[in-house]
Amino acid sequence: MKADVILTAQDASAELVRNKTGIVIDVLRATSTMSTALANGATSIYAVTSPERAFELASEYAEDTVLIGGERGGIRVDGFDLGNSPREYTPAVVGGKTIIMTTSNGTLAISNSSEADELLLCSLLNCSAVAERARSQGRDVAVVCAGGYGLYTLEDAYCAGMVIDRLASVANTELTDLAVTCRALYLQYKDAPLELLNTATSGKGLIDLGFGDDLKYCSNTDSLTVVPYVKDGVIRA
Amino acid sequence: MKADVILTAQDASAELVRNKTGIVIDVLRATSTMSTALANGATSIYAVTSPERAFELASEYAEDTVLIGGERGGIRVDGFDLGNSPREYTPAVVGGKTIIMTTSNGTLAISNSSEADELLLCSLLNCSAVAERARSQGRDVAVVCAGGYGLYTLEDAYCAGMVIDRLASVANTELTDLAVTCRALYLQYKDAPLELLNTATSGKGLIDLGFGDDLKYCSNTDSLTVVPYVKDGVIRA
Repeated sequence: MKADVILTAQDASAELVRNKTGIVIDVLRATSTMSTALANGATSIYAVTSPERAFELASEYAEDTVLIGGERGGIRVDGFDLGNSPREYTPAVVGGKTIIMTTSNGTLAISNSSEADELLLCSLLNCSAVAERARSQGRDVAVVCAGGYGLYTLEDAYCAGMVIDRLASVANTELTDLAVTCRALYLQYKDAPLELLNTATSGKGLIDLGFGDDLKYCSNTDSLTVVPYVKDGVIRA
Repeated sequence: MKADVILTAQDASAELVRNKTGIVIDVLRATSTMSTALANGATSIYAVTSPERAFELASEYAEDTVLIGGERGGIRVDGFDLGNSPREYTPAVVGGKTIIMTTSNGTLAISNSSEADELLLCSLLNCSAVAERARSQGRDVAVVCAGGYGLYTLEDAYCAGMVIDRLASVANTELTDLAVTCRALYLQYKDAPLELLNTATSGKGLIDLGFGDDLKYCSNTDSLTVVPYVKDGVIRA
């Protein structure tokens, strides 16, 4: 098995994920939030790339069956039911609901990786479960970090390194130069995920916006066993 | 002081290096070779971006004062005096000579970083000397990894992490997400530079071409104290 890492949503392409298991990561916060929503009983999530498309799609559903969530600049979009904080997506709020989401980076990473043979969503919360699913499939793996507005983000690379370490620890895995690097980053901060999130530029930005508790929540490594996967544009557990 | 890392020669730009100390790294092998040549008595090095320009420039010098060196695809260019192996650049060969060099990635990284306030060349061989020079200048630092044909290379990021660790260990240094990552990579392989070079894709390629001894040579951390700098297109010690 080979494992590669793609550093930003913008760098992801059909060519880089085709015939592979794609693993999309947006630790702060899209894939943490989506994993939480599904673990808490949401039936499905539609990831769309614009607020306009979110409103349009929501209008096709009965009002009490759907919630619109997501952010721009980290803040809930006007008129949305929910922002992008995983702590909003409680069982009482999302149980039995369809969620329509758009975020700045995560949903673009999903969209640009749609040609993968199987596409999984990963965060620190469900990293081991996702790695085990990818390993059991036996395909080469392309880990797609969402990054931030086209730039590298520390927390996504750290999570990529965690997935790769999980894969390489149990199976013979050929790593690219970037995969080796992300694994080294993970091993260096192995026991300090919250410190890592606090160090990251995105983490500091969220703290400034008042979302410091989200960092604590998102650092709860392997607290969930849900494996979200994308099929025909819909994310399910 | 702030420290950032740019991952490939192609990503380097005037905007990213202006008002900063630029540190160009091409461990395998351009900056290792240039540092060796200057340490061994070459008077100056002209880094040019094409073999044609190298021949043209050489024709302006008396024949016994100049040597043309460099590679394409790792192999010495036809008609050049020297390839890109640092072990060719001995005192007997390069002492007192002007060198004209062109390589696949390193010379492009130098060219794309020319707007830096001061531009230094770094390899594992002279890392501490370069870091000390950058620190003493007090400017923000942009570490420019040459990379390989537009792609990330493990060994340049490792050397970038070594420079950043040297800087951050002695002075208060604000690190970008990429700088934190390269430092973690360095710390993870701190005592194993040759293992790191053997793991790198570029290193494996050079071993396949018969240049395995170059990896051993290039892994000799801090064996040189030379600090090559680029001024008006010329590299001197």
